[in-house]
Amino acid sequence: MAEKINVALIGYQFMGRTHSNAYRQLRHFFDPPLLPQMEVIVGRNEAAVSATAHKLGWRSYATDWQQVLKRDDIGIVDISSPGNTHYPIAMAAAAAGKHIICEKPLANTLDQAIEMAEAAEKAGVRTLTNFNYRFVPAVQLAKRFIDEGRLGEIRHYRGIYLQDWIIDPDFPLVWRLRKELSGSGALGDIAAHNIDLARYLVGDLEEVSAADKTFIKERPLPDSSEGAWGATGKGPRGEVTVDDAVIVIGRFKNGALGTFEATRFAAGRRNYNAFEINGSRGSISFNLERLNELEYFCLDDPEFAQGFRTINVSGGAFGDYAAAWWPAGHIIGYEHTFVHSVLEFVTAIAEKREAVPSFREGARTQATLEAVARSAASRKWESIPQL
Amino acid sequence: MAEKINVALIGYQFMGRTHSNAYRQLRHFFDPPLLPQMEVIVGRNEAAVSATAHKLGWRSYATDWQQVLKRDDIGIVDISSPGNTHYPIAMAAAAAGKHIICEKPLANTLDQAIEMAEAAEKAGVRTLTNFNYRFVPAVQLAKRFIDEGRLGEIRHYRGIYLQDWIIDPDFPLVWRLRKELSGSGALGDIAAHNIDLARYLVGDLEEVSAADKTFIKERPLPDSSEGAWGATGKGPRGEVTVDDAVIVIGRFKNGALGTFEATRFAAGRRNYNAFEINGSRGSISFNLERLNELEYFCLDDPEFAQGFRTINVSGGAFGDYAAAWWPAGHIIGYEHTFVHSVLEFVTAIAEKREAVPSFREGARTQATLEAVARSAASRKWESIPQL
Amino acid sequence: MAEKINVALIGYQFMGRTHSNAYRQLRHFFDPPLLPQMEVIVGRNEAAVSATAHKLGWRSYATDWQQVLKRDDIGIVDISSPGNTHYPIAMAAAAAGKHIICEKPLANTLDQAIEMAEAAEKAGVRTLTNFNYRFVPAVQLAKRFIDEGRLGEIRHYRGIYLQDWIIDPDFPLVWRLRKELSGSGALGDIAAHNIDLARYLVGDLEEVSAADKTFIKERPLPDSSEGAWGATGKGPRGEVTVDDAVIVIGRFKNGALGTFEATRFAAGRRNYNAFEINGSRGSISFNLERLNELEYFCLDDPEFAQGFRTINVSGGAFGDYAAAWWPAGHIIGYEHTFVHSVLEFVTAIAEKREAVPSFREGARTQATLEAVARSAASRKWESIPQL
Amino acid sequence: MAEKINVALIGYQFMGRTHSNAYRQLRHFFDPPLLPQMEVIVGRNEAAVSATAHKLGWRSYATDWQQVLKRDDIGIVDISSPGNTHYPIAMAAAAAGKHIICEKPLANTLDQAIEMAEAAEKAGVRTLTNFNYRFVPAVQLAKRFIDEGRLGEIRHYRGIYLQDWIIDPDFPLVWRLRKELSGSGALGDIAAHNIDLARYLVGDLEEVSAADKTFIKERPLPDSSEGAWGATGKGPRGEVTVDDAVIVIGRFKNGALGTFEATRFAAGRRNYNAFEINGSRGSISFNLERLNELEYFCLDDPEFAQGFRTINVSGGAFGDYAAAWWPAGHIIGYEHTFVHSVLEFVTAIAEKREAVPSFREGARTQATLEAVARSAASRKWESIPQL
Repeated sequence: MAEKINVALIGYQFMGRTHSNAYRQLRHFFDPPLLPQMEVIVGRNEAAVSATAHKLGWRSYATDWQQVLKRDDIGIVDISSPGNTHYPIAMAAAAAGKHIICEKPLANTLDQAIEMAEAAEKAGVRTLTNFNYRFVPAVQLAKRFIDEGRLGEIRHYRGIYLQDWIIDPDFPLVWRLRKELSGSGALGDIAAHNIDLARYLVGDLEEVSAADKTFIKERPLPDSSEGAWGATGKGPRGEVTVDDAVIVIGRFKNGALGTFEATRFAAGRRNYNAFEINGSRGSISFNLERLNELEYFCLDDPEFAQGFRTINVSGGAFGDYAAAWWPAGHIIGYEHTFVHSVLEFVTAIAEKREAVPSFREGARTQATLEAVARSAASRKWESIPQL
Repeated sequence: MAEKINVALIGYQFMGRTHSNAYRQLRHFFDPPLLPQMEVIVGRNEAAVSATAHKLGWRSYATDWQQVLKRDDIGIVDISSPGNTHYPIAMAAAAAGKHIICEKPLANTLDQAIEMAEAAEKAGVRTLTNFNYRFVPAVQLAKRFIDEGRLGEIRHYRGIYLQDWIIDPDFPLVWRLRKELSGSGALGDIAAHNIDLARYLVGDLEEVSAADKTFIKERPLPDSSEGAWGATGKGPRGEVTVDDAVIVIGRFKNGALGTFEATRFAAGRRNYNAFEINGSRGSISFNLERLNELEYFCLDDPEFAQGFRTINVSGGAFGDYAAAWWPAGHIIGYEHTFVHSVLEFVTAIAEKREAVPSFREGARTQATLEAVARSAASRKWESIPQL
Repeated sequence: MAEKINVALIGYQFMGRTHSNAYRQLRHFFDPPLLPQMEVIVGRNEAAVSATAHKLGWRSYATDWQQVLKRDDIGIVDISSPGNTHYPIAMAAAAAGKHIICEKPLANTLDQAIEMAEAAEKAGVRTLTNFNYRFVPAVQLAKRFIDEGRLGEIRHYRGIYLQDWIIDPDFPLVWRLRKELSGSGALGDIAAHNIDLARYLVGDLEEVSAADKTFIKERPLPDSSEGAWGATGKGPRGEVTVDDAVIVIGRFKNGALGTFEATRFAAGRRNYNAFEINGSRGSISFNLERLNELEYFCLDDPEFAQGFRTINVSGGAFGDYAAAWWPAGHIIGYEHTFVHSVLEFVTAIAEKREAVPSFREGARTQATLEAVARSAASRKWESIPQL
Repeated sequence: MAEKINVALIGYQFMGRTHSNAYRQLRHFFDPPLLPQMEVIVGRNEAAVSATAHKLGWRSYATDWQQVLKRDDIGIVDISSPGNTHYPIAMAAAAAGKHIICEKPLANTLDQAIEMAEAAEKAGVRTLTNFNYRFVPAVQLAKRFIDEGRLGEIRHYRGIYLQDWIIDPDFPLVWRLRKELSGSGALGDIAAHNIDLARYLVGDLEEVSAADKTFIKERPLPDSSEGAWGATGKGPRGEVTVDDAVIVIGRFKNGALGTFEATRFAAGRRNYNAFEINGSRGSISFNLERLNELEYFCLDDPEFAQGFRTINVSGGAFGDYAAAWWPAGHIIGYEHTFVHSVLEFVTAIAEKREAVPSFREGARTQATLEAVARSAASRKWESIPQL
């Protein structure tokens, strides 16, 4: 019987829901060497968090994360609260000797991200920056293809993350649209994912040139600043202080060229996190709205039989993650990726190794985001520092 | 706080896993008026069922379903065991006054199916035949479009269910390939789904003409006859006694024409349950391997803007099932459909109404399957009896 | 320099246009061993045919095909007029010693088709039944894959031909909707193509069971009965005497199962001639609205890299037809198929061999169509006679 | 009867073939007010051009374009020869009072392009820069949607042009890979198309930031430097002096953001000229490998029926270009776009108006290309001059 470890989850909204589901489902589909126990969920609003705790499957709730960090029975702290809270909680958790899983982007500034990584390393705790899309089975297959050399030398990465949930000018000024809370807009929220996937699959970028834009400068204030997807309104308006969209070109260290774009203003693209990678022997293409599929083109096929093939990445042929769920052709959903990232985290703790992506790795992605932001401001090419 | 009801699940293999997941997840995403409690899971093989019980989240296990039916604390019996067991268990469960959810096809013969429906009705228990694909949000949207008249008068239903999991001639003779256990092959296992969807969306068929075929007549005997997806083998071979594929044409009562095909020999089609419906005002098209999408063509659009549109059926705009999960564009998986069907069942029990599809409704689909089998044998058009 | 041969084209409407284009374009993209000369186009309506002759590139026009057949300088007679005219013209052309290319279906009855084939064979003239979709490069690639054994043993052919051009009940009663002129409706016009492709790719059928239907029984009479795609009207109505849709199941001689459907009432499907073929080693899928593409699934790929690949069948890697046009990725259109069929015909004449598909071959497809019609009337399985 | 005008075509290779086809086909599908006559085709290599002249349908051939320009009977000069020849021929043709159609990019430098436009304007001759993809019916539909305001305010243009024809390092050093002949590589050859489409659909760009790369620095010298798509070789190698790929971000004057990428190293993308445009009311998406289709998303649809719809842009509902060919669903090919651009040109001549896109318009696109090249060299944002 696997050992157990108690989890304290900070945050109970969108990411709180996905993480809770991951902890609940993990043991029913996998055999983790360390079993996370859903001990306590933490939120400032007692009425809300108490209602949610039971719904999401937690044994208890709390309103003060600092108190929770003092508890000896807590082994993992999971930070799923808004971006501005990542740094103080993570620093305190490291100091308290807790293993830490943290939502992306790791921090609202690069300095904080580095500090968090160093604090955790010094404290000897395990960390995971929750770039959950690395854990899509089709992305894992992409990684395998690249690592096996099936694409040859990589020449191009083309990444877009398109959404449209704030296209209505009357959509309220939620926390994700306020820089002081979220750090940035489309950049940190969604470009972060695509840039992280680029780093995971192709490697580090060397330099970037970028531009950004805020299409809607003012929006109605929401009734509560905590609602992630609030109702549109006609009341007083506040300033949108983050980017609505960002566009980037870049050079990878290995010589590949990259283009990135993230926007919340692409009508009809609900959650379109997509990339294509072209190499000297083949290409792959992925789109999160069809996350069970990977497109693969192989130049080694006879020329009269070459074409992008749609691989349905489900069932037993595609590694441990896909195999754990259902037979081939029975697809999985968005939330399954969080189960996989939690599995990676608890496995790393049990195996006394770094989880991937660690805080250090998250800081490297943050460094790229920060260079993008710098370039958008300076209107120059900016290089990405080595971490 | 909702009342609770104890569940006994018979069967712990593929369907046992999907149903267990449904009971586990239900309360975390929905607010059912009656809360199913995972009391006991039942299987003949004690070693296997005891190992599985905990993994799947059940409080206890048992090996004798007849003993379980005697327990007063059991409110729902869930029959997820092979086809030949449906009838005896359901008859006993009805006699014991239990509400019953039963996997499809409802029974191995039409007579048994009718008897089951009548026994349950007489006993006053609620029933649900678990045609889970009715509960895909995109299928629910299809139903809405048809009910609202958006397709106009229906002229064509075109249904295919294609798989390829037994295309290897050395795939073993599992229970689904033995008529005495499964009743039929592709017909009852997968054509059943597509014919049920046709009935759900377009209405009853009047008559059918059909043919079937067994491509591989003998297969290696599996080590255990219970393994659903066993390994291929080279040992002694036994006779395949079910159809590998079935093809059907039919006429619906409302005047529409229908074609159906089901096969386990369509290389590359892992779980391709697809249909297209053409009406006088529009068309829709669906494919289970992309179950979050519905294709919709509307003749009312201006002619220069007409085309099949791919609707991503996720998020808050698509009814209670889709809304309960994630924001738009964050897709769900295969197993979510079972959560929805369990919700329908416990809601019907709480509301003291028939669940949809009930055993009666399952028997009607069974009547269609039986007419298909009759026609394949008689080489004549066969009419579907009214139930 | 290649020898020349004079052509007389009977018919100047839709098919007259496509054939004229083929004769015009042939020499600019291919090097046929025999060069067809556009000598005379024939139609009953002098005003119309005289206007058209120049537009379509013909040297002259005539109104009496019988007179034209008497001309010694005519080497090829091309019959592109309505179905009821095929038989008399072809019989006379054979008697006059002309090579004959004839639109499909070959005749309005099987007896006529056989008589035409025999008369031509007896007269020693070359014939071609213009099933132009055999000449799509992607279909040629499908043929190659099957002939090379890449699909293994064929188990399934699934063919649909869906259109929607008469879905409006006020669309006029054009000649294609009158049995005395067209022989049949969706069956001879479009199912004919799909059944011919099935025969070309998979082989002869043995028996069929079918049903058909006329959804709209009466339609406004058109101003002129010759307009193929007339305007809708509100005037006096006449009876539609052909099928609007036909559905078929069948068994091939080689043991494969087949399903066919043709309809002019599939909203949104403009010219959707599609098939899928499943074999023991792979599958292919084709759709005329994307005629430059062939979908191919190969079971010999490693399992983690299997998927339907979209082959863009253009450029030099795909045989002489595709190679003659443009570089890879520069697609061709619908009318190019007619250029290919004319090339096949004049090449066969020059090489003193049978063209494919000959009248004999066209009669075999006709025999299948006739069995479908018989079955739709008799409500029984009907076998296809050997020709 | 329309008046006639004699054409002299300079160039007989790939573009020579597409233009010849356009002149041949024009009168058979359209009723141009001025009929181009295929008088003379011009090339330096007499053996090659004489063989080609007849094949492509020209009355005569010549080897000296300067002599041809002296002929009074020539009304139109069509420049389809390599980029470095555009300027001298166009300047001479303008001086000789000929109307001029010229392949894209208009010139190898911006200065030349401007000079050409000014010379033609001063001479009072009509000009057309042959950006043929403006004339795809689906692109015309995109233009209509935008002009009618169906997309609302444009926020994003995302253009990629991906090819893979030189991915083999042994592909020879053809003229398109030598700067002195072609001016640039992927930039002028294919990015040119996508940038021109952006300008056509969204409007002028204000500034760009770009990078480019040459992946393969040396290639085998071809037997003849004139072969566009030569065989690979092992002989002596020469330096590749153009870009293999270029990536660009930019800002449009109307406030939209743009990204562009062009490469000849995207394995599996044969001729993938694609764009997506997102506006405040909808989006459109296009891909040249499926040039008969336009994807359209409309935010005005009810939310439960929103999705990208695939419009098959063929037949009578889509403007004069599409209507001239075949009924709905019968698709056209790559070369048809050239017929349309020639129609535009002769119509403009007859109507005594500027053709679109004129040389002036071509120079504006050239100005954008030139800014991209400047930025790739300077590593700075570069603004686009007004012309």
